[in-house]
Amino acid sequence: MSQIYDRVALIGLGLIASSMFWAIKRGGLAGEVTGYARSEATRDTARRIGLCDRVCDTAREAVEGADLVVLCVPVGAMGAVAEDIAPVLKPGATLSDVGSVKQHVIQAVQPHVPEGVHFIPAHPLAGTEHSGPESGFAKLFDNRWCLLVPVEGTDPDAIARLRALWEGMGSYVDEMDADHHDLVLAVTSHAPHLIAYTMVGVADDLRRVTDSEVIKYSAAGFRDFTRIAASDPTMWRDVFLSNKDATLEILGRFTEELFALQRAIRTGDGEHLFDYFTHTRAIRRGIIDAGQDTDAPDFGRGKASS
Amino acid sequence: MSQIYDRVALIGLGLIASSMFWAIKRGGLAGEVTGYARSEATRDTARRIGLCDRVCDTAREAVEGADLVVLCVPVGAMGAVAEDIAPVLKPGATLSDVGSVKQHVIQAVQPHVPEGVHFIPAHPLAGTEHSGPESGFAKLFDNRWCLLVPVEGTDPDAIARLRALWEGMGSYVDEMDADHHDLVLAVTSHAPHLIAYTMVGVADDLRRVTDSEVIKYSAAGFRDFTRIAASDPTMWRDVFLSNKDATLEILGRFTEELFALQRAIRTGDGEHLFDYFTHTRAIRRGIIDAGQDTDAPDFGRGKASS
Repeated sequence: MSQIYDRVALIGLGLIASSMFWAIKRGGLAGEVTGYARSEATRDTARRIGLCDRVCDTAREAVEGADLVVLCVPVGAMGAVAEDIAPVLKPGATLSDVGSVKQHVIQAVQPHVPEGVHFIPAHPLAGTEHSGPESGFAKLFDNRWCLLVPVEGTDPDAIARLRALWEGMGSYVDEMDADHHDLVLAVTSHAPHLIAYTMVGVADDLRRVTDSEVIKYSAAGFRDFTRIAASDPTMWRDVFLSNKDATLEILGRFTEELFALQRAIRTGDGEHLFDYFTHTRAIRRGIIDAGQDTDAPDFGRGKASS
Repeated sequence: MSQIYDRVALIGLGLIASSMFWAIKRGGLAGEVTGYARSEATRDTARRIGLCDRVCDTAREAVEGADLVVLCVPVGAMGAVAEDIAPVLKPGATLSDVGSVKQHVIQAVQPHVPEGVHFIPAHPLAGTEHSGPESGFAKLFDNRWCLLVPVEGTDPDAIARLRALWEGMGSYVDEMDADHHDLVLAVTSHAPHLIAYTMVGVADDLRRVTDSEVIKYSAAGFRDFTRIAASDPTMWRDVFLSNKDATLEILGRFTEELFALQRAIRTGDGEHLFDYFTHTRAIRRGIIDAGQDTDAPDFGRGKASS
């Protein structure tokens, strides 16, 4: 792999940024990677574990002279950070982000982007339930999609370069527009997360079943929900608030369908249930065929059993 | 490990029974294990892969002379199978099952249990999204709970022996009554499964997002849901129909909470969302501490990335 940018600046040093750093190093994709985090504790941790070639005490210092600046902060903080660093963005540089919502980020960041800077929003579809500077690892993006959401009229060479970086970090890359991105993600990620959060909250609230029972006897279904519901609270608050319309639309559909299945249970309509469950099983097969997951028989049980 | 039963009969040869066979062999827990499946194709497969010491063409043949008979058929089929084998159950033998619902199984099976046979319902909290005779593996029950749900007045020695078998297969064992079991499982397993089925169905129905997009870009949340929603349709139809009251109660609570979170999104109440998500995160920590899952950082990503 050859070097794609002379200097990359990562603003915000959580799971995504720290994984980007290790993936960039693995591929030799940048000459220098600078980093900045708002919290001093995070910066100290980053320095201690060797995260970033240079950890800076201000975002501006990290950004100065960078060919690529990636905003890796919660969606709700993107606008303020963009405003802060705008004056020091190098002419010809690319400004990107990794937010899970794209329309809102474009509205918040675009007004601050100086003439001559290429703004190319991006969203890597990768993550774990962990967060913070120590949670990153180089393989996070391997065989995962990264969606680029360039605004109209963006320089094709700048897009190609950013694409090469993500490919160098192991991702497949696709482009789509921001509206469509936000709807697709509401279906595949945002609504499922809210639902998982809700179910875990219900379990905890239910006084007729003790917390320790819920935890001890958490079978496959619930265990998976708790993993989803352990994701970073700040990030997810911002996702739901900034992708409100699409998320509420999908949740509306979800509630409709859930009511239909509840009615089938209440009326004892086994055929309806069986047909529905048979149909959803086929969708899983499609996901495995698409290489987005494995069908290892003990998948989901982790290392506890080995 | 020493032999606990001379002969064990497994009726129904799906994921649980096949895993029991391999776990019994691993531990040397029984002299002979016989097996029966209703479908000839399943019996042929079992013979081909060496599943069971002897595969029989009728349930009665498999049951004759067995010290332990385990019903491993869908919950809706338990009653009929019990009725069929009742005449050949050996006096002093134990009859058990592995159904996910216990009140219904007790109602369906108990009337057929002959005098002198110990009926001890059980439920191993273990599974994968795969089914059928080839899906079993010896480690399935390792470090998982198996719940025994003995009816009042059951012989303590018979319970102790069944407990020893499950411990020999790697499980932790606990006892609880049938009502409580069905409520706990509605929270930790049945409701989450129905919710996952629903969300996967919604995604597939949504014409504004193509199926291929849902599959290609399925991020962590949705991917986990599809795994849950790939579980055996017959088994799950029976679970919902036979644990109707507890499941509907939990789904009612779920809907209430979901509406409250939807309202928080609609009104932009970020504090409510943040507090809720912070709280659910702590539950995940409890599950990891209880040893029911791991917190390996790339957990959930399977072998695709390695």
